[in-house]
Amino acid sequence: MTNPIDFYFDFSSPYGYFAAAKIDTLAARYARRVNWRPLLLGAVFKVNGQQPLPTIPLKGSYAKHDMLRSARWFGLPFKIPTKFPIGTIAPCRAFYWVQDQDDTLAKKFALALYHAYFAEDRDISNPEVTGNVAAKLGIDKAALTAALNDTAVKERTKNEVDAAIERGVFGSPYMVIDGEPFWGADRLDQLERWLDKGPW
Amino acid sequence: MTNPIDFYFDFSSPYGYFAAAKIDTLAARYARRVNWRPLLLGAVFKVNGQQPLPTIPLKGSYAKHDMLRSARWFGLPFKIPTKFPIGTIAPCRAFYWVQDQDDTLAKKFALALYHAYFAEDRDISNPEVTGNVAAKLGIDKAALTAALNDTAVKERTKNEVDAAIERGVFGSPYMVIDGEPFWGADRLDQLERWLDKGPW
Repeated sequence: MTNPIDFYFDFSSPYGYFAAAKIDTLAARYARRVNWRPLLLGAVFKVNGQQPLPTIPLKGSYAKHDMLRSARWFGLPFKIPTKFPIGTIAPCRAFYWVQDQDDTLAKKFALALYHAYFAEDRDISNPEVTGNVAAKLGIDKAALTAALNDTAVKERTKNEVDAAIERGVFGSPYMVIDGEPFWGADRLDQLERWLDKGPW
Repeated sequence: MTNPIDFYFDFSSPYGYFAAAKIDTLAARYARRVNWRPLLLGAVFKVNGQQPLPTIPLKGSYAKHDMLRSARWFGLPFKIPTKFPIGTIAPCRAFYWVQDQDDTLAKKFALALYHAYFAEDRDISNPEVTGNVAAKLGIDKAALTAALNDTAVKERTKNEVDAAIERGVFGSPYMVIDGEPFWGADRLDQLERWLDKGPW
Protein backbone atom coordinates (compact mmCIF):
# COMPACT_ATOMS: atom_id res chain seq x y z
CA MET A 1 0.00 0.00 0.00
CA THR A 2 2.67 2.48 0.89
CA ASN A 3 5.85 0.91 -0.42
CA PRO A 4 8.83 3.22 -0.14
CA ILE A 5 10.46 4.64 -3.25
CA ASP A 6 13.90 3.15 -3.85
CA PHE A 7 16.09 6.02 -4.98
CA TYR A 8 19.41 5.02 -6.60
CA PHE A 9 21.99 7.67 -7.39
CA ASP A 10 25.70 8.30 -7.79
CA PHE A 11 27.34 11.24 -6.03
CA SER A 12 29.06 12.18 -9.31
CA SER A 13 25.77 12.40 -11.24
CA PRO A 14 24.29 15.88 -11.87
CA TYR A 15 20.89 14.39 -12.64
CA GLY A 16 21.14 12.43 -9.39
CA TYR A 17 21.75 15.75 -7.63
CA PHE A 18 18.68 17.31 -9.27
CA ALA A 19 16.47 14.37 -8.30
CA ALA A 20 17.88 14.22 -4.76
CA ALA A 21 16.87 17.84 -4.22
CA LYS A 22 13.25 17.05 -5.18
CA ILE A 23 12.41 13.44 -4.38
CA ASP A 24 11.58 13.62 -0.66
CA THR A 25 9.26 16.63 -1.01
CA LEU A 26 7.57 14.97 -3.98
CA ALA A 27 7.13 11.66 -2.13
CA ALA A 28 5.86 13.37 1.04
CA ARG A 29 2.96 14.89 -0.93
CA TYR A 30 1.74 11.33 -1.49
CA ALA A 31 2.69 10.03 1.96
CA ARG A 32 5.53 7.89 0.66
CA ARG A 33 8.95 7.36 2.17
CA VAL A 34 12.14 7.36 0.14
CA ASN A 35 14.92 4.85 0.63
CA TRP A 36 18.17 6.50 -0.52
CA ARG A 37 20.64 4.09 -2.08
CA PRO A 38 23.84 5.61 -3.44
CA LEU A 39 25.75 3.40 -5.85
CA LEU A 40 28.98 3.46 -7.82
CA LEU A 41 28.28 4.06 -11.50
CA GLY A 42 31.86 3.04 -12.26
CA ALA A 43 31.07 -0.50 -11.05
CA VAL A 44 27.74 -0.52 -12.88
CA PHE A 45 29.32 0.65 -16.14
CA LYS A 46 32.05 -1.99 -15.86
CA VAL A 47 29.39 -4.71 -15.75
CA ASN A 48 27.26 -3.21 -18.54
CA GLY A 49 30.02 -1.94 -20.83
CA GLN A 50 28.71 1.63 -20.66
CA GLN A 51 30.82 4.78 -20.73
CA PRO A 52 30.48 7.93 -18.62
CA LEU A 53 28.29 10.43 -20.47
CA PRO A 54 30.89 13.26 -20.64
CA THR A 55 33.31 11.00 -22.52
CA ILE A 56 30.93 10.18 -25.39
CA PRO A 57 31.51 12.29 -28.54
CA LEU A 58 28.76 14.85 -29.32
CA LYS A 59 26.50 13.46 -26.59
CA GLY A 60 29.13 14.54 -24.06
CA SER A 61 29.24 18.17 -25.13
CA TYR A 62 25.46 18.33 -25.41
CA ALA A 63 25.25 16.73 -21.96
CA LYS A 64 27.26 19.51 -20.33
CA HIS A 65 24.98 22.07 -21.91
CA ASP A 66 21.92 20.11 -20.81
CA MET A 67 23.21 19.78 -17.24
CA LEU A 68 23.63 23.55 -16.93
CA ARG A 69 20.20 24.23 -18.41
CA SER A 70 18.51 21.51 -16.35
CA ALA A 71 20.03 22.96 -13.16
CA ARG A 72 18.32 26.24 -14.03
CA TRP A 73 15.13 24.31 -14.84
CA PHE A 74 15.17 22.74 -11.36
CA GLY A 75 16.28 26.03 -9.75
CA LEU A 76 19.49 24.61 -8.28
CA PRO A 77 22.99 26.11 -7.99
CA PHE A 78 25.33 24.25 -10.32
CA LYS A 79 28.61 24.38 -12.18
CA ILE A 80 30.46 21.66 -14.04
CA PRO A 81 33.07 20.55 -11.47
CA THR A 82 36.75 20.94 -12.39
CA LYS A 83 37.22 17.21 -11.88
CA PHE A 84 34.27 15.43 -13.50
CA PRO A 85 33.24 12.67 -13.25
CA ILE A 86 34.87 11.35 -10.08
CA GLY A 87 34.97 8.03 -8.25
CA THR A 88 32.52 8.20 -5.37
CA ILE A 89 33.55 5.34 -3.12
CA ALA A 90 34.40 7.61 -0.17
CA PRO A 91 31.07 9.52 -0.09
CA CYS A 92 29.19 6.31 -0.80
CA ARG A 93 30.72 4.39 2.12
CA ALA A 94 30.41 7.44 4.35
CA PHE A 95 26.72 7.69 3.49
CA TYR A 96 25.93 4.08 4.41
CA TRP A 97 27.90 4.40 7.66
CA VAL A 98 25.83 7.45 8.63
CA GLN A 99 22.58 5.88 7.41
CA ASP A 100 23.05 2.92 9.72
CA GLN A 101 22.96 5.39 12.61
CA ASP A 102 20.49 8.02 11.41
CA ASP A 103 18.60 7.93 8.10
CA THR A 104 17.43 11.55 8.25
CA LEU A 105 20.94 12.78 8.92
CA ALA A 106 22.24 10.60 6.08
CA LYS A 107 19.91 12.36 3.61
CA LYS A 108 21.07 15.78 4.84
CA PHE A 109 24.63 14.56 4.46
CA ALA A 110 23.97 13.37 0.89
CA LEU A 111 22.47 16.73 -0.06
CA ALA A 112 25.45 18.51 1.53
CA LEU A 113 27.87 16.30 -0.43
CA TYR A 114 26.03 17.08 -3.67
CA HIS A 115 26.09 20.77 -2.86
CA ALA A 116 29.81 20.68 -2.08
CA TYR A 117 30.56 18.97 -5.38
CA PHE A 118 28.19 20.66 -7.80
CA ALA A 119 27.73 24.12 -6.27
CA GLU A 120 31.12 24.66 -4.60
CA ASP A 121 33.37 22.56 -6.88
CA ARG A 122 34.87 20.66 -3.94
CA ASP A 123 36.32 17.25 -4.81
CA ILE A 124 34.25 14.89 -2.67
CA SER A 125 36.16 11.86 -4.00
CA ASN A 126 38.78 12.98 -1.47
CA PRO A 127 37.96 11.38 1.95
CA GLU A 128 39.25 14.52 3.64
CA VAL A 129 36.64 16.64 1.84
CA THR A 130 33.89 14.13 2.54
CA GLY A 131 34.94 14.23 6.21
CA ASN A 132 34.78 18.03 6.28
CA VAL A 133 31.28 18.05 4.78
CA ALA A 134 30.23 15.55 7.47
CA ALA A 135 31.82 17.56 10.28
CA LYS A 136 29.78 20.62 9.26
CA LEU A 137 26.67 18.57 10.11
CA GLY A 138 28.01 17.54 13.51
CA ILE A 139 29.14 14.09 12.36
CA ASP A 140 32.33 12.82 14.01
CA LYS A 141 34.94 13.26 11.27
CA ALA A 142 37.57 10.99 12.83
CA ALA A 143 35.06 8.17 13.31
CA LEU A 144 33.80 8.61 9.74
CA THR A 145 37.31 8.61 8.28
CA ALA A 146 38.08 5.40 10.16
CA ALA A 147 34.80 3.87 8.96
CA LEU A 148 35.81 4.35 5.31
CA ASN A 149 38.30 1.52 5.76
CA ASP A 150 36.17 -0.60 8.02
CA THR A 151 35.51 -4.07 6.60
CA ALA A 152 31.83 -4.06 7.55
CA VAL A 153 31.25 -0.66 5.92
CA LYS A 154 33.09 -1.74 2.76
CA GLU A 155 31.03 -4.90 2.67
CA ARG A 156 27.76 -3.04 3.24
CA THR A 157 28.56 -0.67 0.36
CA LYS A 158 29.59 -3.47 -1.96
CA ASN A 159 26.40 -5.38 -1.19
CA GLU A 160 24.26 -2.34 -1.95
CA VAL A 161 25.98 -1.79 -5.29
CA ASP A 162 25.79 -5.49 -6.21
CA ALA A 163 22.10 -5.57 -5.30
CA ALA A 164 21.43 -2.53 -7.49
CA ILE A 165 23.23 -4.13 -10.45
CA GLU A 166 21.35 -7.38 -9.80
CA ARG A 167 18.08 -5.43 -9.93
CA GLY A 168 19.00 -3.96 -13.33
CA VAL A 169 19.81 -0.42 -12.22
CA PHE A 170 22.02 1.07 -14.95
CA GLY A 171 22.02 4.82 -14.38
CA SER A 172 21.52 7.72 -12.00
CA PRO A 173 19.01 8.71 -10.83
CA TYR A 174 16.98 5.51 -11.01
CA MET A 175 13.81 5.19 -8.98
CA VAL A 176 11.71 2.08 -8.35
CA ILE A 177 8.21 2.43 -6.95
CA ASP A 178 5.85 -0.55 -6.54
CA GLY A 179 8.16 -2.44 -8.91
CA GLU A 180 7.94 0.29 -11.60
CA PRO A 181 11.33 1.68 -12.74
CA PHE A 182 11.92 5.32 -13.68
CA TRP A 183 15.28 6.44 -15.03
CA GLY A 184 16.33 10.08 -15.03
CA ALA A 185 15.44 13.34 -13.32
CA ASP A 186 13.23 13.96 -16.36
CA ARG A 187 10.97 11.09 -15.31
CA LEU A 188 9.97 12.70 -12.00
CA ASP A 189 6.78 13.91 -13.70
CA GLN A 190 5.83 10.38 -14.77
CA LEU A 191 6.76 9.11 -11.29
CA GLU A 192 4.52 11.73 -9.74
CA ARG A 193 1.60 10.55 -11.84
CA TRP A 194 2.27 7.04 -10.52
CA LEU A 195 2.23 8.30 -6.93
CA ASP A 196 -0.97 10.18 -7.64
CA LYS A 197 -2.94 7.59 -9.58
CA GLY A 198 -1.17 4.27 -9.08
CA PRO A 199 -0.49 2.18 -12.19
CA TRP A 200 -1.47 4.11 -15.36
CA MET B 1 13.02 37.29 -33.92
CA THR B 2 10.91 34.43 -35.18
CA ASN B 3 13.44 31.83 -36.24
CA PRO B 4 11.83 28.52 -37.11
CA ILE B 5 12.42 25.48 -34.93
CA ASP B 6 14.57 22.88 -36.67
CA PHE B 7 13.04 19.52 -35.81
CA TYR B 8 15.23 16.48 -36.52
CA PHE B 9 13.78 12.99 -36.22
CA ASP B 10 14.06 9.44 -37.49
CA PHE B 11 10.95 7.57 -38.63
CA SER B 12 12.04 4.58 -36.54
CA SER B 13 12.24 6.60 -33.31
CA PRO B 14 9.33 6.35 -30.84
CA TYR B 15 10.41 9.53 -29.09
CA GLY B 16 10.54 11.23 -32.49
CA TYR B 17 6.94 10.10 -33.00
CA PHE B 18 5.89 11.55 -29.63
CA ALA B 19 7.57 14.88 -30.39
CA ALA B 20 6.20 15.01 -33.94
CA ALA B 21 2.67 14.73 -32.55
CA LYS B 22 3.21 17.76 -30.31
CA ILE B 23 5.77 20.12 -31.83
CA ASP B 24 3.65 22.10 -34.31
CA THR B 25 0.87 22.83 -31.81
CA LEU B 26 3.45 23.84 -29.24
CA ALA B 27 5.30 26.10 -31.67
CA ALA B 28 2.10 27.69 -32.94
CA ARG B 29 1.25 28.88 -29.41
CA TYR B 30 4.36 31.07 -29.65
CA ALA B 31 3.95 31.97 -33.32
CA ARG B 32 6.89 29.87 -34.43
CA ARG B 33 7.18 27.71 -37.50
CA VAL B 34 8.70 24.24 -37.46
CA ASN B 35 11.08 22.99 -40.11
CA TRP B 36 10.77 19.16 -40.20
CA ARG B 37 14.00 17.39 -41.05
CA PRO B 38 13.92 13.60 -40.98
CA LEU B 39 17.31 11.92 -40.80
CA LEU B 40 18.77 8.44 -40.81
CA LEU B 41 19.92 7.47 -37.32
CA GLY B 42 21.78 4.52 -38.84
CA ALA B 43 24.08 6.94 -40.69
CA VAL B 44 24.43 9.15 -37.60
CA PHE B 45 25.28 6.18 -35.35
CA LYS B 46 27.87 4.93 -37.84
CA VAL B 47 29.70 8.26 -37.61
CA ASN B 48 29.42 8.52 -33.82
CA GLY B 49 29.92 4.87 -32.90
CA GLN B 50 26.55 4.72 -31.12
CA GLN B 51 24.24 1.71 -30.96
CA PRO B 52 20.46 1.60 -31.34
CA LEU B 53 18.86 1.85 -27.89
CA PRO B 54 16.96 -1.47 -28.04
CA THR B 55 20.23 -3.38 -28.53
CA ILE B 56 21.94 -2.07 -25.38
CA PRO B 57 21.77 -4.51 -22.42
CA LEU B 58 19.51 -3.38 -19.53
CA LYS B 59 18.99 0.05 -21.09
CA GLY B 60 17.25 -1.69 -24.00
CA SER B 61 14.69 -3.53 -21.90
CA TYR B 62 14.06 -0.44 -19.79
CA ALA B 63 13.71 1.58 -23.00
CA LYS B 64 10.86 -0.60 -24.28
CA HIS B 65 9.07 -0.17 -20.98
CA ASP B 66 9.71 3.58 -21.06
CA MET B 67 8.45 3.88 -24.65
CA LEU B 68 5.15 2.24 -23.74
CA ARG B 69 4.71 4.37 -20.65
CA SER B 70 5.75 7.57 -22.43
CA ALA B 71 3.20 6.89 -25.18
CA ARG B 72 0.53 6.78 -22.47
CA TRP B 73 2.04 9.95 -20.96
CA PHE B 74 1.68 11.75 -24.30
CA GLY B 75 -1.72 10.18 -24.95
CA LEU B 76 -0.71 8.47 -28.20
CA PRO B 77 -1.54 5.03 -29.62
CA PHE B 78 1.58 2.88 -29.59
CA LYS B 79 2.93 -0.63 -29.68
CA ILE B 80 6.48 -1.87 -30.08
CA PRO B 81 6.61 -2.76 -33.79
CA THR B 82 7.33 -6.37 -34.73
CA LYS B 83 10.37 -5.21 -36.69
CA PHE B 84 12.17 -2.62 -34.60
CA PRO B 85 14.24 -0.61 -35.27
CA ILE B 86 14.10 -0.37 -39.07
CA GLY B 87 16.06 1.44 -41.77
CA THR B 88 14.10 4.51 -42.79
CA ILE B 89 15.62 5.52 -46.10
CA ALA B 90 12.35 5.00 -48.05
CA PRO B 91 10.12 7.16 -45.81
CA CYS B 92 12.92 9.73 -45.45
CA ARG B 93 13.38 10.17 -49.22
CA ALA B 94 9.62 10.12 -49.74
CA PHE B 95 9.22 12.87 -47.15
CA TYR B 96 11.73 15.21 -48.80
CA TRP B 97 10.20 14.59 -52.21
CA VAL B 98 6.76 15.56 -50.87
CA GLN B 99 8.16 18.48 -48.87
CA ASP B 100 9.65 20.04 -52.01
CA GLN B 101 6.10 20.22 -53.36
CA ASP B 102 4.02 20.94 -50.26
CA ASP B 103 5.40 21.38 -46.74
CA THR B 104 2.05 21.09 -44.99
CA LEU B 105 1.24 17.87 -46.81
CA ALA B 106 4.72 16.54 -45.97
CA LYS B 107 4.02 16.99 -42.24
CA LYS B 108 0.70 15.18 -42.56
CA PHE B 109 2.51 12.44 -44.44
CA ALA B 110 5.17 12.16 -41.71
CA LEU B 111 2.51 11.85 -39.02
CA ALA B 112 0.70 9.21 -41.10
CA LEU B 113 3.97 7.26 -41.53
CA TYR B 114 4.59 7.37 -37.78
CA HIS B 115 1.02 6.23 -37.12
CA ALA B 116 1.35 3.37 -39.60
CA TYR B 117 4.56 2.18 -37.96
CA PHE B 118 3.89 2.70 -34.27
CA ALA B 119 0.10 2.36 -34.01
CA GLU B 120 -0.59 -0.15 -36.81
CA ASP B 121 2.68 -2.10 -36.86
CA ARG B 122 3.13 -1.63 -40.62
CA ASP B 123 6.71 -1.90 -41.86
CA ILE B 124 7.34 1.52 -43.39
CA SER B 125 10.89 0.53 -44.37
CA ASN B 126 9.14 -1.21 -47.26
CA PRO B 127 8.69 1.31 -50.13
CA GLU B 128 5.39 -0.35 -50.98
CA VAL B 129 4.02 0.45 -47.50
CA THR B 130 5.37 4.00 -47.60
CA GLY B 131 3.65 4.38 -50.99
CA ASN B 132 0.34 3.12 -49.61
CA VAL B 133 0.49 5.57 -46.71
CA ALA B 134 1.13 8.36 -49.22
CA ALA B 135 -1.71 7.26 -51.51
CA LYS B 136 -4.16 7.51 -48.59
CA LEU B 137 -3.34 11.24 -48.49
CA GLY B 138 -3.90 11.67 -52.21
CA ILE B 139 -0.20 11.61 -53.09
CA ASP B 140 0.62 9.93 -56.41
CA LYS B 141 2.01 6.56 -55.37
CA ALA B 142 3.63 5.71 -58.70
CA ALA B 143 5.39 9.08 -58.88
CA LEU B 144 6.54 8.71 -55.27
CA THR B 145 7.85 5.19 -55.82
CA ALA B 146 9.81 6.40 -58.84
CA ALA B 147 11.17 9.36 -56.83
CA LEU B 148 12.70 6.99 -54.25
CA ASN B 149 15.33 6.07 -56.83
CA ASP B 150 15.68 9.51 -58.35
CA THR B 151 19.24 10.85 -58.13
CA ALA B 152 18.16 14.33 -57.08
CA VAL B 153 15.94 12.97 -54.28
CA LYS B 154 18.70 10.67 -53.07
CA GLU B 155 21.13 13.57 -53.12
CA ARG B 156 18.71 15.88 -51.31
CA THR B 157 18.22 13.28 -48.57
CA LYS B 158 21.94 12.59 -48.24
CA ASN B 159 22.66 16.32 -47.97
CA GLU B 160 20.07 16.73 -45.22
CA VAL B 161 21.52 13.85 -43.22
CA ASP B 162 25.10 15.06 -43.71
CA ALA B 163 24.12 18.59 -42.65
CA ALA B 164 22.47 17.23 -39.51
CA ILE B 165 25.58 15.23 -38.61
CA GLU B 166 27.73 18.28 -39.36
CA ARG B 167 25.60 20.30 -36.96
CA GLY B 168 26.15 17.74 -34.19
CA VAL B 169 22.70 16.13 -34.19
CA PHE B 170 23.13 12.70 -32.58
CA GLY B 171 19.64 11.50 -31.70
CA SER B 172 15.91 11.72 -32.31
CA PRO B 173 14.08 13.91 -31.65
CA TYR B 174 16.56 16.78 -31.66
CA MET B 175 15.31 20.34 -31.82
CA VAL B 176 17.31 23.52 -32.41
CA ILE B 177 15.74 26.87 -31.67
CA ASP B 178 17.70 30.15 -31.91
CA GLY B 179 20.87 28.03 -31.85
CA GLU B 180 19.81 26.25 -28.62
CA PRO B 181 19.74 22.42 -28.89
CA PHE B 182 17.18 20.21 -27.14
CA TRP B 183 17.44 16.43 -27.31
CA GLY B 184 14.50 14.19 -26.49
CA ALA B 185 10.73 14.33 -26.25
CA ASP B 186 11.33 14.90 -22.54
CA ARG B 187 12.89 18.29 -23.31
CA LEU B 188 9.72 19.73 -24.86
CA ASP B 189 8.98 21.38 -21.51
CA GLN B 190 12.37 23.14 -21.47
CA LEU B 191 11.91 24.07 -25.14
CA GLU B 192 8.53 25.57 -24.33
CA ARG B 193 10.08 27.75 -21.64
CA TRP B 194 12.56 28.96 -24.29
CA LEU B 195 9.70 29.81 -26.66
CA ASP B 196 7.90 31.58 -23.85
CA LYS B 197 10.74 33.55 -22.28
CA GLY B 198 13.63 33.46 -24.74
CA PRO B 199 17.06 32.53 -23.34
CA TRP B 200 16.79 31.53 -19.66
